[in-house]
Amino acid sequence: ETITVDNSLGEFFVKASPVDFIDSVDLLLVLGGDGTLLSSVRLLEGEKIPILGVNLGSLGFLTIVQVDEFEEALTNTLNGNYQIDERLMLEGKIFDENGKVLVEEHVLNDVVVNKAALARIMDLRLMIDGDFVSDYKSDGLIISTPTGSTAYSLAAGGPIIFPSTNVLTITPICPHSLTNRPIVVCSNSEIEITLNKMHTDIFITFDGQKGYRFSSQHILKVKKSERKALLINPKLKNYFEVLKEKLKWGER
Amino acid sequence: ETITVDNSLGEFFVKASPVDFIDSVDLLLVLGGDGTLLSSVRLLEGEKIPILGVNLGSLGFLTIVQVDEFEEALTNTLNGNYQIDERLMLEGKIFDENGKVLVEEHVLNDVVVNKAALARIMDLRLMIDGDFVSDYKSDGLIISTPTGSTAYSLAAGGPIIFPSTNVLTITPICPHSLTNRPIVVCSNSEIEITLNKMHTDIFITFDGQKGYRFSSQHILKVKKSERKALLINPKLKNYFEVLKEKLKWGER
Amino acid sequence: ETITVDNSLGEFFVKASPVDFIDSVDLLLVLGGDGTLLSSVRLLEGEKIPILGVNLGSLGFLTIVQVDEFEEALTNTLNGNYQIDERLMLEGKIFDENGKVLVEEHVLNDVVVNKAALARIMDLRLMIDGDFVSDYKSDGLIISTPTGSTAYSLAAGGPIIFPSTNVLTITPICPHSLTNRPIVVCSNSEIEITLNKMHTDIFITFDGQKGYRFSSQHILKVKKSERKALLINPKLKNYFEVLKEKLKWGER
Amino acid sequence: ETITVDNSLGEFFVKASPVDFIDSVDLLLVLGGDGTLLSSVRLLEGEKIPILGVNLGSLGFLTIVQVDEFEEALTNTLNGNYQIDERLMLEGKIFDENGKVLVEEHVLNDVVVNKAALARIMDLRLMIDGDFVSDYKSDGLIISTPTGSTAYSLAAGGPIIFPSTNVLTITPICPHSLTNRPIVVCSNSEIEITLNKMHTDIFITFDGQKGYRFSSQHILKVKKSERKALLINPKLKNYFEVLKEKLKWGER
Repeated sequence: ETITVDNSLGEFFVKASPVDFIDSVDLLLVLGGDGTLLSSVRLLEGEKIPILGVNLGSLGFLTIVQVDEFEEALTNTLNGNYQIDERLMLEGKIFDENGKVLVEEHVLNDVVVNKAALARIMDLRLMIDGDFVSDYKSDGLIISTPTGSTAYSLAAGGPIIFPSTNVLTITPICPHSLTNRPIVVCSNSEIEITLNKMHTDIFITFDGQKGYRFSSQHILKVKKSERKALLINPKLKNYFEVLKEKLKWGER
Repeated sequence: ETITVDNSLGEFFVKASPVDFIDSVDLLLVLGGDGTLLSSVRLLEGEKIPILGVNLGSLGFLTIVQVDEFEEALTNTLNGNYQIDERLMLEGKIFDENGKVLVEEHVLNDVVVNKAALARIMDLRLMIDGDFVSDYKSDGLIISTPTGSTAYSLAAGGPIIFPSTNVLTITPICPHSLTNRPIVVCSNSEIEITLNKMHTDIFITFDGQKGYRFSSQHILKVKKSERKALLINPKLKNYFEVLKEKLKWGER
Repeated sequence: ETITVDNSLGEFFVKASPVDFIDSVDLLLVLGGDGTLLSSVRLLEGEKIPILGVNLGSLGFLTIVQVDEFEEALTNTLNGNYQIDERLMLEGKIFDENGKVLVEEHVLNDVVVNKAALARIMDLRLMIDGDFVSDYKSDGLIISTPTGSTAYSLAAGGPIIFPSTNVLTITPICPHSLTNRPIVVCSNSEIEITLNKMHTDIFITFDGQKGYRFSSQHILKVKKSERKALLINPKLKNYFEVLKEKLKWGER
Repeated sequence: ETITVDNSLGEFFVKASPVDFIDSVDLLLVLGGDGTLLSSVRLLEGEKIPILGVNLGSLGFLTIVQVDEFEEALTNTLNGNYQIDERLMLEGKIFDENGKVLVEEHVLNDVVVNKAALARIMDLRLMIDGDFVSDYKSDGLIISTPTGSTAYSLAAGGPIIFPSTNVLTITPICPHSLTNRPIVVCSNSEIEITLNKMHTDIFITFDGQKGYRFSSQHILKVKKSERKALLINPKLKNYFEVLKEKLKWGER
């Protein structure tokens, strides 16, 4: 088994199509922060290559190996002393008024609808499995995986969702109606979002990295992706230890 | 098929053991509020009798049929135009220091640890599947089913959980540490709660109806019950319509 | 005493400088929503003309007279049966790196720093009266008057502040650190905000209506304005009745 | 000037009436945690003796001097290099149905109405300055001073209030209605709380230390006390530095 780590990997990785190297790769080592790992997952396009995330800065929720733990993590992994966490991903599609797919993205964290800084409050409609759920007057809406629950959704007031659960979380951003609380639904729910009014400067963002303009002619549909992210857990710490360290639990 | 509704039912029901009438009952009609339905579920002791809840006051989350919809709901039900929502329940057991079971209760909404009005803040420990999660300095902790997510947990800041999901929610009550946010875990998680210090006047409450004193010698274990509550949904409204009406969604 | 209400007022008002009509106006009648009243206050440029706000749509927090109450409100006002609520306003100034004032605005609701939809999380620094308070990693920060507490700040998790108090509220928008809670300070505090990093697409918005780009060379300073908004309260309802109606209090 | 610190002080202090030693004391040195300081303030019964709080454990919000800073703090104080923070206190009175005062207490942090662990949800009414504000279905209500805003009120979702502001905060505990948010009012407001229904096991707690039973025949009135707490600030750190350390600000 071979693990390649050289300086040109980043550049190679970005330029290459996954088909170019997939056959020769057993494991993808991601050095950086959570953002780097998110974009690596996207670039894999669903190929079943496990990822070991090493955080070069402070601890991440996804890159849970710190630099000083790297040797131990790698040893564990090469010795087979690891488990693979299969993480649920979301597929987001933007349709035009004729039902044509304009955009298809797959994310590990979240699909976010939000407004530009100077835009007025948006009025959007949420449907789940064809049922009307609610209209939201808010700054936006976050559809997150369990993995993404500790990212933007948490900042917007959402709950912490254990990664192995089969649920999606829908968290409004600064809702005008104080009763519009975060909602957790089955991961096989099909979520549909439309804008109730003409709005300018509304955007859909995938994992906080790719953005598209959203208009009242569009429909955003989000559901569980057929892709999974395979995160290598070299058994150095469990999920709650990561939470505790990141959220400074128990220190007050 | 026979449905018996007479004035003495309530009294009969309370006095009788379910084994006395189970063979002759196809459906349990509960007239009252959500509290009445919760106690009916407990009295059924796991017998698989579907329940139709009719709310005599304002709309409930469990008793979703209003009085003026009763006839239609009953007609639908008798004509087979209904579905049965199988709702996850929790089993809570209190153990003494020798591992002996002192209490076993099964709930549809929640198991709550909380402190008396004059008691000092409590310091409790949460373990999940044998892993240490966190110590909580708080007024208490709520372990709720998806059904119970819209009851006490919501008031304490928890998310709304769609009833058919397979998750449990752990919501702290007035936690000192602001980072101790609600946690959602798989429904097959085994939750264990102990008190870190001698406390007086700590109680465990089951569905807000039965209470027991909790001391530092005790262990509270909560997991998915083998029982299910079978709620008849006579197809008059879906879950989100109930939510919308109860929470006054979309009115501001 | 004369009150002029004619069709051309709106246009006149926008075009005219307040000095053109100030001497002949005893009372400004604003027909519209809260947004209309906010811009009217700004156009008055501090002139001490009392405003009677009439809401043509649903009840507002500022335009508390409904159309069907208009006659009574006007009668009360003309008969002297009213009080004038003197509302605290904020002065916001943007300085460049040489200390030159680029922008000066006066607001009745709030001064908001927020990021564009596709921008990365911002890292800003808050100083109060020259003391370092905190760095915020968030989507933004809201500085609001008591009057503005029920607008954007409330949606972002801020408290409801009674209008006659002498305080300012600083509410973070989706803060990464869960302990960064809303802060209430004396109204004579001087607030200073700077960006810790180069950011693109950060904006400062005044009363949600006027926006300016904010960069790491700039300093935003916010303090109590010498201007006051004078809102006529024709004694039809008190503040808590408005709150109750707007927030649907007591209905669940 | 003399400062007496001897082992018998605590006992003396508890037994003695303030009138016994007031003439010979220039400064009260409180060694312990915030709870110790709260009870010292109560025992002073309004006598204008400044207090220097030294925390023997972890940093407190009130006892801001740590053990290792004690010498510096004392030196600063004796050299006159300090300021006295005059802190607003609340007077709480419980009246019976004939208007007779049953209880009068003065607090530095908060007056809390809450229910026993096994009690049903309470339904209380809040009036301010004679105006009806709202009925609350909740576990209770906290009336806090600015000083108390970082104690129980913060855990219940209240804002952080700068100590020198002239406001009171009213924070519901686990309100059923999600729109019942914390309210900040002028410190000269007169707050009145009654129970809408017969309840058993409702209590009023003063600074978390003294508790009295509250019934539907009683009226609780809370307003600004004529007493002030005089806290010595030996200029080692400002309020925001205390907040930062206690709340772990800026660490995520």
